[in-house]
Amino acid sequence: MKTVGIGFLGCGNIGCGVYRLLEQQRAQMEENEGISFDVRQILVRSTGKRRGADIPDSLLTTCAQDVLADPEIAIVMEFMGGEQPAASYMMRALEAGKTVVTANKMALATHWNELIRAAREHGAGLYFEASVCGAIPIIRAMCDSLQANRISSVTGIINGTTNYILSRMSSEGASYQAALSEAQRLGLAEPDPTADVEGFDAAYKLSILSSLAFHRHVPVESVYREGISGVTPEDVQFGREFGLTLKLLAVAKEENGRIQARVHPAFVPDSHPLASVGGAFNAVYVSGHACGEMMFYGRGAGDMPTASALVSDLTMAAKEKSHRLPAVFGDAEDIADDWTCVHFVRMLATDEPGVLSELAGLFARHGVSIASMVQKGERDAQGRVQIVFLTHRASECAVRAAISEMDEALGVQVSIIRVEKD
Amino acid sequence: MKTVGIGFLGCGNIGCGVYRLLEQQRAQMEENEGISFDVRQILVRSTGKRRGADIPDSLLTTCAQDVLADPEIAIVMEFMGGEQPAASYMMRALEAGKTVVTANKMALATHWNELIRAAREHGAGLYFEASVCGAIPIIRAMCDSLQANRISSVTGIINGTTNYILSRMSSEGASYQAALSEAQRLGLAEPDPTADVEGFDAAYKLSILSSLAFHRHVPVESVYREGISGVTPEDVQFGREFGLTLKLLAVAKEENGRIQARVHPAFVPDSHPLASVGGAFNAVYVSGHACGEMMFYGRGAGDMPTASALVSDLTMAAKEKSHRLPAVFGDAEDIADDWTCVHFVRMLATDEPGVLSELAGLFARHGVSIASMVQKGERDAQGRVQIVFLTHRASECAVRAAISEMDEALGVQVSIIRVEKD
Repeated sequence: MKTVGIGFLGCGNIGCGVYRLLEQQRAQMEENEGISFDVRQILVRSTGKRRGADIPDSLLTTCAQDVLADPEIAIVMEFMGGEQPAASYMMRALEAGKTVVTANKMALATHWNELIRAAREHGAGLYFEASVCGAIPIIRAMCDSLQANRISSVTGIINGTTNYILSRMSSEGASYQAALSEAQRLGLAEPDPTADVEGFDAAYKLSILSSLAFHRHVPVESVYREGISGVTPEDVQFGREFGLTLKLLAVAKEENGRIQARVHPAFVPDSHPLASVGGAFNAVYVSGHACGEMMFYGRGAGDMPTASALVSDLTMAAKEKSHRLPAVFGDAEDIADDWTCVHFVRMLATDEPGVLSELAGLFARHGVSIASMVQKGERDAQGRVQIVFLTHRASECAVRAAISEMDEALGVQVSIIRVEKD
Repeated sequence: MKTVGIGFLGCGNIGCGVYRLLEQQRAQMEENEGISFDVRQILVRSTGKRRGADIPDSLLTTCAQDVLADPEIAIVMEFMGGEQPAASYMMRALEAGKTVVTANKMALATHWNELIRAAREHGAGLYFEASVCGAIPIIRAMCDSLQANRISSVTGIINGTTNYILSRMSSEGASYQAALSEAQRLGLAEPDPTADVEGFDAAYKLSILSSLAFHRHVPVESVYREGISGVTPEDVQFGREFGLTLKLLAVAKEENGRIQARVHPAFVPDSHPLASVGGAFNAVYVSGHACGEMMFYGRGAGDMPTASALVSDLTMAAKEKSHRLPAVFGDAEDIADDWTCVHFVRMLATDEPGVLSELAGLFARHGVSIASMVQKGERDAQGRVQIVFLTHRASECAVRAAISEMDEALGVQVSIIRVEKD
């Protein structure tokens, strides 16, 4: 039996989940894996707080050095969240030759090459399965299972909060605000929901996933990002009539040698495997030239699902004789600022002769070809009606240029939602 | 750059796929993984045959010893299929300290402990991701990602041929025979389809999956097995009216300390993630106490998807300093011969006063409680009508006993299909 000393940085919900899981599974892990884990130090903000796990007071410390400098601690598990001080603590652990297991997508995505380089230089491991999609082993799939593939796309529902909100809007016609409040009441959204609903959380995760998929570093700043706070029940409802389900998608694609990395609301056909991913679940859909299409589905958040991934990394880290690490990738220099897809364009336009032809003409002048159009419902008080266009595959930039001209020329209010068919 | 000598046992579709993939990805694998693979010997039945890959004649041999005794071959890849001579070749390779990578579920499931023991004794690796569900990394998920979980159930669509047939029966009302012929025409079913349609293929895979899930050896012989050849379009159609989709499921469950391992046609609710797995796709749905519910979806067969898994194993095997292997499990002594679930029971019964009450009475005497019943359609020439019962959760043995008495007492023709709701 090998005993491995570990230290925790942070002990909120996730940390307590890991502690509980290690206690619950102690006998099974010792028997099946031949490893016993010894939690030696836990960094907390306050030692007096009540916690969701039965942790002896003697393990708690408010001094990071107690974890980072303990020579008996071989593996440091980090679940403090946030960029700092998490990133610098991880750097210190790696520089001391300690292996790091982290759930922190923000610190990882923003210090990606720095952390990997430090791990490589000091012979330490860096494990981060839990940083993307909780229990879903998508990191291991990309690194250890699909490494013989040329990945053409990774399309994911990688934020549970927004998927819950959009699922409620879809199933019940709820407004964005009502669905968000419900999510907050259930503890699925933070009191300040910005990181989730504006797509920041998904952008960190997509930076990690796309770097692994394309073997080039895709920095967070180059991920196009648009949240769900502008989505209306009308968008959801019109989409349904076209057989489309609205999701917040994270899309990484390699097309014509250029990388697209973008997070935005998008419609998928109802028949697409991602369409039926409901509630707070996550799923990642991957296409590779040999494996074909795959999907990984599961719980992307929560203390125990995240702990499941963290303890799997911990076990892997403890057994590995030499740690496998991603290469230090150069920054991708070919990130696309334009892409083509089908666009759903909904607008409120004056119901007058000539307006429709003017709108259609504007699309045409920008090279955007229309696949279908519906006009719905009664005129509002200003004499305007709802019009929805579905384009053929068209350039994002061209569609935006057409829309901006429409706004100037006709004063129409427009929402654009991309449609991802594959 | 590390160069690793490898040998192939067999070179049909899968072997050619692996050869092509290694050639295609040579530069990428050298750059990202730091490994160069050198294919040195390929065992074939006949050296004269045309193959689907550009393989130099100098690599081909009809003598197994050329592969098994070459000291420069560190890793033997086996894709001959069938139990023998594949299993004994793999044993010889392992006994010579060579690592084995195999796609052969039959040889692996029937020689499970023997192969694992040989690998352990000789310090060799044994990798078998490709033996279950092609490209889907379900083996690695069970061994490396969910190891901190108590798995309660593994429910899979793990045979693409039968899923294709049932999908056609469901979408087009096709008969079993017509859908099978179509599958044969497309190369999705063998000229002799027995191994697929009677559930043997799924039983081998389930033996492997359930042994890994429950850390006890579940021999193939203890897997309950029932194929799809008796499924009728009426079953499929009635199921649809109850909101149920018919699949050939492989179910491994631990309930009340006993293991269930069974392959049979089963209904899942239309809303279940497995219901929308269509065509020749595979999917495995796993429940664990920490990770919650997960699903892994992808291509379970075909040369390139299988090659994707084989080359991922090969890369892992080449990089590993000490191979991770499952333990040699004792045989599970607690495999259940009874289980409870909802049963769909369809019968053709004489449409006479009293028959229905007699049927209901028989169910009741066996402790089987009825949740709903429908009688459908016109009387046939013998004055019989279709009746479908959906039971509440009931013992499999009790339902079978009731049915057998009905058959004796009333001469009714019955089909039973289990309903898996979770």
